[in-house]
Amino acid sequence: MRKIGIRELEDIALGASLLGSGGGGDPYIGKLIAVGAIKDRGEVTLLDPDEVKDDAFIAPIACMGAPTVLSEKAIGGNEYAVLTDMISRYYNKKIDALMPMEAGGVNSMLPFAAAARLGLPLIDVDGMGRAFPELQMVTFTIGGVSATPMALTDEKGNSAIFKTITNKWTEELARAVTMTCGGMVSVILYCMDGKTVKNFGVKGIVTRSEKLGKSIREAKYGPLSPEENFLAACEGYKIFRGKITDIKREVRGAFNFGKAVFEGTGEFKGARGYVEFQNENLVASVEGEIRATTPDLICLVDAETFIPLPTDALKYGKRVLVIGLKCYDLWRSPEGIELVGPRYFGYDTDYIPVEQRVKGDHV
Amino acid sequence: MRKIGIRELEDIALGASLLGSGGGGDPYIGKLIAVGAIKDRGEVTLLDPDEVKDDAFIAPIACMGAPTVLSEKAIGGNEYAVLTDMISRYYNKKIDALMPMEAGGVNSMLPFAAAARLGLPLIDVDGMGRAFPELQMVTFTIGGVSATPMALTDEKGNSAIFKTITNKWTEELARAVTMTCGGMVSVILYCMDGKTVKNFGVKGIVTRSEKLGKSIREAKYGPLSPEENFLAACEGYKIFRGKITDIKREVRGAFNFGKAVFEGTGEFKGARGYVEFQNENLVASVEGEIRATTPDLICLVDAETFIPLPTDALKYGKRVLVIGLKCYDLWRSPEGIELVGPRYFGYDTDYIPVEQRVKGDHV
Repeated sequence: MRKIGIRELEDIALGASLLGSGGGGDPYIGKLIAVGAIKDRGEVTLLDPDEVKDDAFIAPIACMGAPTVLSEKAIGGNEYAVLTDMISRYYNKKIDALMPMEAGGVNSMLPFAAAARLGLPLIDVDGMGRAFPELQMVTFTIGGVSATPMALTDEKGNSAIFKTITNKWTEELARAVTMTCGGMVSVILYCMDGKTVKNFGVKGIVTRSEKLGKSIREAKYGPLSPEENFLAACEGYKIFRGKITDIKREVRGAFNFGKAVFEGTGEFKGARGYVEFQNENLVASVEGEIRATTPDLICLVDAETFIPLPTDALKYGKRVLVIGLKCYDLWRSPEGIELVGPRYFGYDTDYIPVEQRVKGDHV
Repeated sequence: MRKIGIRELEDIALGASLLGSGGGGDPYIGKLIAVGAIKDRGEVTLLDPDEVKDDAFIAPIACMGAPTVLSEKAIGGNEYAVLTDMISRYYNKKIDALMPMEAGGVNSMLPFAAAARLGLPLIDVDGMGRAFPELQMVTFTIGGVSATPMALTDEKGNSAIFKTITNKWTEELARAVTMTCGGMVSVILYCMDGKTVKNFGVKGIVTRSEKLGKSIREAKYGPLSPEENFLAACEGYKIFRGKITDIKREVRGAFNFGKAVFEGTGEFKGARGYVEFQNENLVASVEGEIRATTPDLICLVDAETFIPLPTDALKYGKRVLVIGLKCYDLWRSPEGIELVGPRYFGYDTDYIPVEQRVKGDHV
């Protein structure tokens, strides 16, 4: 158990933008909302999962929709209380703690705002260890946990409780309502007991975010070159270094699809790299050979500062380092690969762990 | 209080297709579902609204979506029990009686199926006295009744409970989920007490449907000409008689828009008539002069048999009688006109009652 204040949020937000692996939304606005809540109500208690009782009632909290909408449409501040009231009433149980469901991107920050406003502790765990575009894509789906009963509310005061036959149906119904409500809503879903959190959650992910943030911020102070310091601290695999020469984008359904093309620089001079994305980066290849795929994390960072670059910040001429991070173990199981592997996203290729694809490049 | 069996359903369904005024879906499939339920479980008790206690808890039941989907996608039979369980649990109250919300079209029949399956009485009342395309378009909206908490379920077992800030928002959110569920769902909405039913409902509308059905079936046996018998029995205003020479259709959003053009026959020979619709018929005009608009009912019937014609049955060469029926009084209030008058549907014209527009044509 420890307290999270405004200083800790800075590193967590920076690390969360790396874990977003191109998607999940820029945590910046989420951070402003969380900082505001902590200034008002004080620091948030972060619990280690092992400090949570097996029969504790845990509510994961998140926003759903297009994070860019957050910059135009405020979160009202009342949504979190509405959601916890809906859930407490439905289950007829008091919520003991909140948790994030997605540690990458903006959903790393909003649970801190909710925890501060509601005076509830937050657990150092999530259901992705990164960001993914659809709500059934959580480790708890593999664990057989239902996403529903799920509570949803918008900032105007409309709300819904869903109960569905699969977590994919939850995604379908809740996505339709989210779009109708203006593209962004707040949700509580995958309510579960403490034991299930410990069995299937990605433990310590908030602390890992904080360390990743620190590895970016302190890269230039380490014993080696800044890049070597950064890669060592984040346990990253170097996939490519290059300059963006082309970027294609397409919006289909509720998703941003695209492909970035890089001309190699430094030790990659003369080679050509590619990164394809659907909200998050999905496949990275060099000279036609795949070097990393989902569910491993493919992260693009500024080649000098190592600041993570979301896909919507990519543009011609930008100098970029492409790195791979190992995903959470459970994603590498057959069930995990079925849920979030390359074939789910339409790529006709098997999943091979990034550390095998990038042989010998591991710093 | 009286019992409704299979014989009564025939006339009610026929009358409901007239009250559908072109929309609401063909009651035929709904009738098959209701007949099946009555064969299984016995006749349904129809209560006069005045027999309902002021503090009784009443649940209006309906299907939402495109009625044509019913012919491809069965109603499972379990939906009604799921819905009443959801509502009883949410309100923590036992449901005393069901009622239809829309007496025109397929929603005239499904409440009989639900009442038979659940062993609950049905009240002889609805919230439209006809059919309308959107769920906020009920007399209870004028009475300040909230459509929510609303329960929705599909035949697969997905369900949702909505709570919204206005009845128009209920329409928006529930419509999005309906489309995602495959275009057709079952719902309970506008739950209220017996007193409110009596204050704002269209009383006796099931009995009126039955009489309208009888007026069609027995038109040829009366003292006058079949057409005169029919018009007198249904209190209809003759707007036009003609042959369809053109029909335009367009699907926009979740709605069927269109316009039928008629070449006059008989006493209308040489004149040209028009009927425009959005699911239901909205405006009828003769030689450029409007003869009837929503919320009055504009009904197209076969010129010989007086069988009502839904808009999707209109085709070139069909000989048609266009009649107007007075709408329920509350629709003629300023609040009613705002909710369902011609301007809501995009027509730049005031509402004038059909009996004033069709002067002297009232048989």
